[in-house]
Amino acid sequence: MIHFSINKNLFLQALTTTKRAISHKNAIPILSTIKIDVSNEGITLIGSNGQISIENFISVKNENAGLLINSLGSILLEANFFINIVSSLPDITLDFKEIEQKQVVLVSGKSEITLKGKDPDQYPRIQEVAASNPLILETKILKQIINETAFAASTQESRPILTGVHFVLTDNQSLKTVATDSHRMSQKKITLEKTGDNFDVVIPSRSLREFSAVFTDDIETVEIFFANNQLLFRSENISFYTRLLEGNYPDTDRLIPTEFTNVVTFTTNKLRQSMERARLLSNATQNGTVKLEIAKGVVRAHVHSPEVGRVDEEIDTVHSSGEELAISFNPTYLIEALKAIDSEEVTISFISAVRPFTLVPEDDTDSFIQLITPVRTN
Amino acid sequence: MIHFSINKNLFLQALTTTKRAISHKNAIPILSTIKIDVSNEGITLIGSNGQISIENFISVKNENAGLLINSLGSILLEANFFINIVSSLPDITLDFKEIEQKQVVLVSGKSEITLKGKDPDQYPRIQEVAASNPLILETKILKQIINETAFAASTQESRPILTGVHFVLTDNQSLKTVATDSHRMSQKKITLEKTGDNFDVVIPSRSLREFSAVFTDDIETVEIFFANNQLLFRSENISFYTRLLEGNYPDTDRLIPTEFTNVVTFTTNKLRQSMERARLLSNATQNGTVKLEIAKGVVRAHVHSPEVGRVDEEIDTVHSSGEELAISFNPTYLIEALKAIDSEEVTISFISAVRPFTLVPEDDTDSFIQLITPVRTN
Repeated sequence: MIHFSINKNLFLQALTTTKRAISHKNAIPILSTIKIDVSNEGITLIGSNGQISIENFISVKNENAGLLINSLGSILLEANFFINIVSSLPDITLDFKEIEQKQVVLVSGKSEITLKGKDPDQYPRIQEVAASNPLILETKILKQIINETAFAASTQESRPILTGVHFVLTDNQSLKTVATDSHRMSQKKITLEKTGDNFDVVIPSRSLREFSAVFTDDIETVEIFFANNQLLFRSENISFYTRLLEGNYPDTDRLIPTEFTNVVTFTTNKLRQSMERARLLSNATQNGTVKLEIAKGVVRAHVHSPEVGRVDEEIDTVHSSGEELAISFNPTYLIEALKAIDSEEVTISFISAVRPFTLVPEDDTDSFIQLITPVRTN
Repeated sequence: MIHFSINKNLFLQALTTTKRAISHKNAIPILSTIKIDVSNEGITLIGSNGQISIENFISVKNENAGLLINSLGSILLEANFFINIVSSLPDITLDFKEIEQKQVVLVSGKSEITLKGKDPDQYPRIQEVAASNPLILETKILKQIINETAFAASTQESRPILTGVHFVLTDNQSLKTVATDSHRMSQKKITLEKTGDNFDVVIPSRSLREFSAVFTDDIETVEIFFANNQLLFRSENISFYTRLLEGNYPDTDRLIPTEFTNVVTFTTNKLRQSMERARLLSNATQNGTVKLEIAKGVVRAHVHSPEVGRVDEEIDTVHSSGEELAISFNPTYLIEALKAIDSEEVTISFISAVRPFTLVPEDDTDSFIQLITPVRTN
């Protein structure tokens, strides 16, 4: 039966990270528990919602953990409740001891709390991914790619494949990531420093957002392993599993236009603020759009809601080329696209009022491109 | 028709304060608007939810307002929407101009936003309170009194009078404030520096909480005026009206015991943390209580939930006198009582397992007393 003592704050941090995989209202009740595995090497905390699973390892060698293991074993505890209890303990260390009938006694300072646990055999097996031949990426770069693409994935289950981000490695070195909800698209390409085996997978965008939250900035690199329908992100202490989406991702390359009639460079922030004003009124219109009018190098935004009122404003530009154009679109798509752009300036290229327009950051015109489809209005 | 220009940030701040009285989902639709009155002296912003009303005055003499008034008038604008629009404006000043058909044009930088307003005659009249012979209090002291009592008022409408805080001035100088939900009670007494006319009113605790949010710490004193069933808190720029509760407030003086069998002094924080741990488990018990056991100067807390587990802990005491006692109560009441106490130490005095116990802060044993009723358990 388990018996160990550990630093409360470090334990709490590891529990909180693991909890990101645990949903309180899971259809499978046992998945609302956290699994605690104690071996001679350390403690493994395991959480899963059936889509993603996190294994978080606390080593006896981690000096900040102050981990002393007296006796080994496994147990399941109600995750939310257990974490609240640990967080409320008075002392900086806690003693965790399993007693009869799967009960756990926590002692910290003068407080003694007894909790009912569950048989670890009830917990489903986390699928194993053969941990060989990983792709190695800088965590920072992977998180940036996720930030630049995942928001553009669909949130609707009508076409499940579009709720994921398409990751494709070709020539062992060229990584392309794409997300689209069919109204807008975001694509980022990078060349890897270390080569790897080619792959073509679709990762749920929700899993990627959780990955970004779990892999903190102090984790420098992440190893990526693929199995049939699973993927494993691994750092020294954390294994993050996600299922992959099955099916063929649509061919998005053919969507990207290359010839344009109007090319306008904006200050990213100013354009975003202008669209945020426009959205306040476009939300009250029937088709929810803002109209951009380009004429003689001047760009103006218009929204007219018969109930609420209207916005008319000139948007400062850095450069502008091309003839007259009027185009309508959902300002939320442009706002979200601009949020994903770090660059101070952004170039938007148009073809016509009915064809998608592209956005590229001014400081990275080759690798990062976004597409937004306009709305036909009459 | 109205025309003025003003500093955006100051205007936004005044709007946000006034909005505290405005409920988005009021049964009376016109109350979701904010009323803007422009006179030669300045702008008055008015909001109301029928229970409380706020009038916020921006003077032409306020240098931070940069207020230039060209033309006078009144108008109503959808409060939430208007505030979002003002907050989104690009420049530090805005120009506010009424045009035909109750429309308003806001110009800021290169942005021009037209909003539909409403006829000010549709707005209900805010009841006037005769502004003479006020009671004057330091804002800080009034907010402290509210903080010490309002939480103990009832939130249930079954006995409406108990949703208020009883304010009684006797001998022109002795102010007593009491709140109770019949399970616990909190009473604060102070002696006013300036005398006033005696009064006996019950102020809705919700109004008092809004008062605390609206009257910021830079407002040094507040004038208080009474009318039949209304009360006005007034500072230089803000008039805050609240209706009063009608009916007789129960006599609470007779509830306060004076003789005790057990008197224990705790460190406020440690007791509170102990109760927060206890509450995690008491929430999972049938009667939701923690049991305190006092024996030979040692105080122990116990909770036992057959489903979830148990807490047993010793609580450090500073002093303890009296015989053995075991008493059960809802830990939330004690936690909330302790939150209202600034003092590092708190003295709790008991009579028996079935009689209310009292809490007084160690540094203010005369003026501030709280009562908590135990729960009978067998």
